[in-house]
Amino acid sequence: MTTSFELDAAVAETTRRTEELVRDVVLPVEAEYDGRAHDAAEGLRLTLQDAARTAGVFAPHVHSRYGGLGLGMRDRAPVFEAAGYSLFGPLALNCAAPDEGNVHLLEQVATAGQRERYLRPLATGAVRSCFAMTEPAPGAGSDPAALTTTAERTSAGWLLNGRKWFITGAVGAAFAILMARTSGEPGSQGGATMFLVDAGLPGFRRLRDIPTMAESFFGGHAELILDNVEVPHDAVLGDVDQGFRHAQVRLGPARTTHCMRWLGTARRAADIAIDRAATRKVFGTRLGELGMAQQLIADNEIDIEASRALVLKACWELDIGAPAAQITAITKTFVAEAVNRVVDRALQICGALGVSDDIPLHRLYREVRPFRIYDGPSETHRWAIARRVLRTAAQRLEGDR
Amino acid sequence: MTTSFELDAAVAETTRRTEELVRDVVLPVEAEYDGRAHDAAEGLRLTLQDAARTAGVFAPHVHSRYGGLGLGMRDRAPVFEAAGYSLFGPLALNCAAPDEGNVHLLEQVATAGQRERYLRPLATGAVRSCFAMTEPAPGAGSDPAALTTTAERTSAGWLLNGRKWFITGAVGAAFAILMARTSGEPGSQGGATMFLVDAGLPGFRRLRDIPTMAESFFGGHAELILDNVEVPHDAVLGDVDQGFRHAQVRLGPARTTHCMRWLGTARRAADIAIDRAATRKVFGTRLGELGMAQQLIADNEIDIEASRALVLKACWELDIGAPAAQITAITKTFVAEAVNRVVDRALQICGALGVSDDIPLHRLYREVRPFRIYDGPSETHRWAIARRVLRTAAQRLEGDR
Amino acid sequence: MTTSFELDAAVAETTRRTEELVRDVVLPVEAEYDGRAHDAAEGLRLTLQDAARTAGVFAPHVHSRYGGLGLGMRDRAPVFEAAGYSLFGPLALNCAAPDEGNVHLLEQVATAGQRERYLRPLATGAVRSCFAMTEPAPGAGSDPAALTTTAERTSAGWLLNGRKWFITGAVGAAFAILMARTSGEPGSQGGATMFLVDAGLPGFRRLRDIPTMAESFFGGHAELILDNVEVPHDAVLGDVDQGFRHAQVRLGPARTTHCMRWLGTARRAADIAIDRAATRKVFGTRLGELGMAQQLIADNEIDIEASRALVLKACWELDIGAPAAQITAITKTFVAEAVNRVVDRALQICGALGVSDDIPLHRLYREVRPFRIYDGPSETHRWAIARRVLRTAAQRLEGDR
Amino acid sequence: MTTSFELDAAVAETTRRTEELVRDVVLPVEAEYDGRAHDAAEGLRLTLQDAARTAGVFAPHVHSRYGGLGLGMRDRAPVFEAAGYSLFGPLALNCAAPDEGNVHLLEQVATAGQRERYLRPLATGAVRSCFAMTEPAPGAGSDPAALTTTAERTSAGWLLNGRKWFITGAVGAAFAILMARTSGEPGSQGGATMFLVDAGLPGFRRLRDIPTMAESFFGGHAELILDNVEVPHDAVLGDVDQGFRHAQVRLGPARTTHCMRWLGTARRAADIAIDRAATRKVFGTRLGELGMAQQLIADNEIDIEASRALVLKACWELDIGAPAAQITAITKTFVAEAVNRVVDRALQICGALGVSDDIPLHRLYREVRPFRIYDGPSETHRWAIARRVLRTAAQRLEGDR
Repeated sequence: MTTSFELDAAVAETTRRTEELVRDVVLPVEAEYDGRAHDAAEGLRLTLQDAARTAGVFAPHVHSRYGGLGLGMRDRAPVFEAAGYSLFGPLALNCAAPDEGNVHLLEQVATAGQRERYLRPLATGAVRSCFAMTEPAPGAGSDPAALTTTAERTSAGWLLNGRKWFITGAVGAAFAILMARTSGEPGSQGGATMFLVDAGLPGFRRLRDIPTMAESFFGGHAELILDNVEVPHDAVLGDVDQGFRHAQVRLGPARTTHCMRWLGTARRAADIAIDRAATRKVFGTRLGELGMAQQLIADNEIDIEASRALVLKACWELDIGAPAAQITAITKTFVAEAVNRVVDRALQICGALGVSDDIPLHRLYREVRPFRIYDGPSETHRWAIARRVLRTAAQRLEGDR
Repeated sequence: MTTSFELDAAVAETTRRTEELVRDVVLPVEAEYDGRAHDAAEGLRLTLQDAARTAGVFAPHVHSRYGGLGLGMRDRAPVFEAAGYSLFGPLALNCAAPDEGNVHLLEQVATAGQRERYLRPLATGAVRSCFAMTEPAPGAGSDPAALTTTAERTSAGWLLNGRKWFITGAVGAAFAILMARTSGEPGSQGGATMFLVDAGLPGFRRLRDIPTMAESFFGGHAELILDNVEVPHDAVLGDVDQGFRHAQVRLGPARTTHCMRWLGTARRAADIAIDRAATRKVFGTRLGELGMAQQLIADNEIDIEASRALVLKACWELDIGAPAAQITAITKTFVAEAVNRVVDRALQICGALGVSDDIPLHRLYREVRPFRIYDGPSETHRWAIARRVLRTAAQRLEGDR
Repeated sequence: MTTSFELDAAVAETTRRTEELVRDVVLPVEAEYDGRAHDAAEGLRLTLQDAARTAGVFAPHVHSRYGGLGLGMRDRAPVFEAAGYSLFGPLALNCAAPDEGNVHLLEQVATAGQRERYLRPLATGAVRSCFAMTEPAPGAGSDPAALTTTAERTSAGWLLNGRKWFITGAVGAAFAILMARTSGEPGSQGGATMFLVDAGLPGFRRLRDIPTMAESFFGGHAELILDNVEVPHDAVLGDVDQGFRHAQVRLGPARTTHCMRWLGTARRAADIAIDRAATRKVFGTRLGELGMAQQLIADNEIDIEASRALVLKACWELDIGAPAAQITAITKTFVAEAVNRVVDRALQICGALGVSDDIPLHRLYREVRPFRIYDGPSETHRWAIARRVLRTAAQRLEGDR
Repeated sequence: MTTSFELDAAVAETTRRTEELVRDVVLPVEAEYDGRAHDAAEGLRLTLQDAARTAGVFAPHVHSRYGGLGLGMRDRAPVFEAAGYSLFGPLALNCAAPDEGNVHLLEQVATAGQRERYLRPLATGAVRSCFAMTEPAPGAGSDPAALTTTAERTSAGWLLNGRKWFITGAVGAAFAILMARTSGEPGSQGGATMFLVDAGLPGFRRLRDIPTMAESFFGGHAELILDNVEVPHDAVLGDVDQGFRHAQVRLGPARTTHCMRWLGTARRAADIAIDRAATRKVFGTRLGELGMAQQLIADNEIDIEASRALVLKACWELDIGAPAAQITAITKTFVAEAVNRVVDRALQICGALGVSDDIPLHRLYREVRPFRIYDGPSETHRWAIARRVLRTAAQRLEGDR
């Protein structure tokens, strides 16, 4: 067997249906909301997800035992991209961040009891969740080891204290997967544990929502307080002190599915610009006949094709269980920057119209900017990418002596 | 005499006072309004302009006979940049677009009567104005020759018909300087005339305001309808059929002062990021100790210094009356892109904080994006820049034969 | 079946042997010649190709009936990249341009007789060939339609007249595949025919060799004169007047195998820089610990991974017979630029050492620059890429009406 | 007084004469030598310098007491750029590196006796010199503090031991200004002293010439050995242990005059491309009518104008004695990269012709690449630029508390 980019027929059909759903149902709803979901009511989600169920494309990434389509990473790629064509598409398919990544994490790490209690309702769209890791400075951010939130062991379980910041989807989430320090000091590499923390527990409250330039995330980005929150022993997800290791399970796939969804945004922006260039007359010709516009258009195609090819490579490594840290870091870094370039070029092609509310490009422009920061800023990934090849070289050079 | 970058002492003092005004008065007001002026009430403008008068920095570009400081282009550069440090600073100094450019145009082209009636109140801040040139597709945009709005001569003056689009500052403007076709067809190079059109004339109405990603322009960006608007003979600004030629008077300086103001935005973004990098601890060190952050910071300094140097060169050519079309096109293209890069890097340095409303970077990010489109998209300027050098080469090569 | 990046075991073994051959045999020879093959004697080629035969990696792309390994495009990719790790590697494997592309063209288009006479000796390494298409200005170049060389029908066959320029590998080639105009005028789209022209025919001579910044091409880049060269009827390759159409057969695969070979060059440059960064001490630390060096290193990895993924995608389309014009244009444009960036960064990491002859980076730097021009400059490919998507959009928009 | 870009009339005349000299005399000689001066005989230098003397443009930077034109930094800028239009122009005017910077250093630091013995013959073109600072790894390079060459005090003077690497102009130089450690250890910040070391002293020998991708430097780049070289007490240039401080005197101006000269190279490359675009027909039109070619051409103009403006700003700070470290670092970094971009774009515009020896672009391409490394690689400058603004910010933030 050899390299192939063939698409499974069933996946192609799911992709086609997703495109149809997005075009006919989701994009009109997005327009109605002006792309803002961060403070939308629950009704939006339920409506969109019902439509996705009807279309047979709900939860493509979820195991069939929980009612999903059970697609692996490679097979998700075209479906998630099709969903990402609308800012609301991933919500419709129940494959938006952070729920999609949490489903994966729970599938891998949770006990049978935890799976029934947390995974099933999440996977079926009955509830939403959040992933509570990052903290206000100088706590955990690009550097997870700076973690300051603490969990102290009590007779009944654990006592959580701390503050979490920029927790996506927190508003309305039924529970959080929350990282807290169970040993060591802020700055030490290990000592973190993941907890399943129900919303509504005494002492667990939302300090505020953090408005951001991206407004399409259902449930916003909240700042949370943990003030002596008590959780039982079985709230521990995975093993004590192994939180960072368990989180690795989530990292690679989560950053790769991010790429898929955002690629949909890029494709949409590029399409808007192409349609404009194909029709708009300027300087006595069509805009698309002008060399500089052609360059912008061509560079968009190049960026999208390269992104897709990288995403599939990363997916393949993840699917076969290879240590995909390097390829997913490379893919995330490239795709996040490529997506930003694509939307920027599309906007430039559309000129003042692109700047205006008359077309959604400026909304897309704002939505994609944070992607170069979310899930690890480009700089952190580049640092990790370089360190890996340098370490390998150092070992080889050492061996040569 | 030789090249000098010396700053006149009086200008240095005006710059210092402007910085003080911006820091103490304007930035707090900007924060209060979250940087949005496009639909602000007139009180905002009056308050800010009173403060600027008190500080002695009102109308730096206006001739002293109208109460201004009478600064030439070079001397405006540091003052306008200082004003641009806040999105509301230019409004405070009465040197925001489009009024600032209109003042210049009226000084150069208007009759004595027009100067008293339109220039004086505009220069002193009694009223605001707009410049009504661009039209909905397929009308005038990047290509002014596509002008479709018509002016027909009548016994009493002129009858105007057409539609204008993206007219900055139109809401609340007392009058428009409006371009209409008095001869030729859309697509022909000449045949345009500028008119002074009072707000409130029968048939002259605002169809709608166009929301845009930039929201700091007082008076927004409107779409206007001219439905058999009658204006008298003396509404003609300059000569009939010479509208495009007269508009040239405005173009070079207007795009250069744009650069000055937006450089202030870039400087502010860079400063926010520097302060962050100087204090934020990450990975056991200060952010500013990390090489990739240093690179972002250094590139910001490089872009800002190069921009300033170009702006001064353009100003000098404009001040001495040189044909500054090439240098102002070069400067506008470079500075617009440099400013965008600077704000983008600043945001990247600040990470998730930069994406959030907690600091104003994401607002600046949105405000600067249109600068690569306003006053001629980069592509149009590059086309003009290349054509000039190619024409010169063709003539020389012709001569060589 | 679904997307896979799996490498066939036999291909993996061929790749490993090629790496070994390159490291143990080819690189030392390259060093001896300082990377210059453009005017090397035939002995160099024979020696290297014997070594490749011994290693069992000779002619990976050639059909087994001519003694090759019969690898498809996807399977060639890792082998050709391994060969390209040395500037002389492709020569050793008999898979250098233009012979490799000519083999493919002859396999597709030649008659049985032509295959025995031209393809077999070429495929087995008995002779070399060239592809004579481009002409001095204003003839065929980026724009093939400008073709000026003529072929007039005579009773005995054809009479060829014209001049060819920058014909890679011409020195020492046994024959040329030569494009001449059999109908139409320079500028018209069709009317070209391909001829098999033996070296040594009366009137067919080499005017000069054109020295270039790239010196690793065996046989250089020559300028050829055709002065009433007579060829028989069966010198026509394919159909009369169908030369441009037949050349398409060669274009897509040839530009993609170019990418493979040059990726090897990029990988080598990146490796040199990594080894340097892993060992060189500067400012009290290792160079590889500095953030800006890490950024250069990481960007190299990103560029190489994205290039490889695109190459495989292009190969897959070519292998399954899809109309691969768009993907091969995208791949060639991206990879040519990526390879240049990689070598440039590698050189920067090595500092003055990289500039010096002490390591081969500056040689690689010169060798890769023309890749952005050979086989269609990036601008021509971008133009074609944009036109395709614009045409599709125009058709769709037309259909929507 | 205010900012001005006015050119002194006498300087304008010197510039014009230099342009004439370069066009009529120097460029033809450069073509004859194929741009290679690194191993040229002394006759080349004498011939060119005689021509410059005749033209009245010899030694523009040298004080009149040594027969120069005595131009300050700002006034040198257009003259040096005009000289740099040919790779041999600076040699003709006796303003090439490293002699030009050495003249400046000797003027500032040398004793009266040293000035007569070393400065006068150097300034008048009687002899050449070199600046011997950098060493083979792990010695002094980007990081001067790594200095390993030692100078031990003896009764008769000093005993020098060590190895110098990449010493530009060393072949045929009459003397070296050589940096050696007189106290401290490799890695410590101070402890360096500059010595005037005559060529031909026992133990002072050239190990080899280092071939590099740049070949236009007269005298090449050599590796030198100091094996118990004895120099007298008055060979010390400046003060003992103050070598790094004295070198600062040379750094800022030297890197800025580098920018001037290399800007001439960029201008020449851009001109070649413009002429090509103005005449070459392709795709039924002139190359210069194609948008992507126009973009390359326009970007060249932008880079050149921005570079010039920065150079003048740096010159002005140097002329008025301001602490110009930041502006010269910014200027060097920007200009070195801009010059490379310009030559690269010019080559791309010229296509295969640009790659060939038929026009000198590929030679210029090779010559400019090292500029991003010489006189401090871009990364080192960016690090210094960022550190300065961060230090200022830290102090201000400290003060705010």
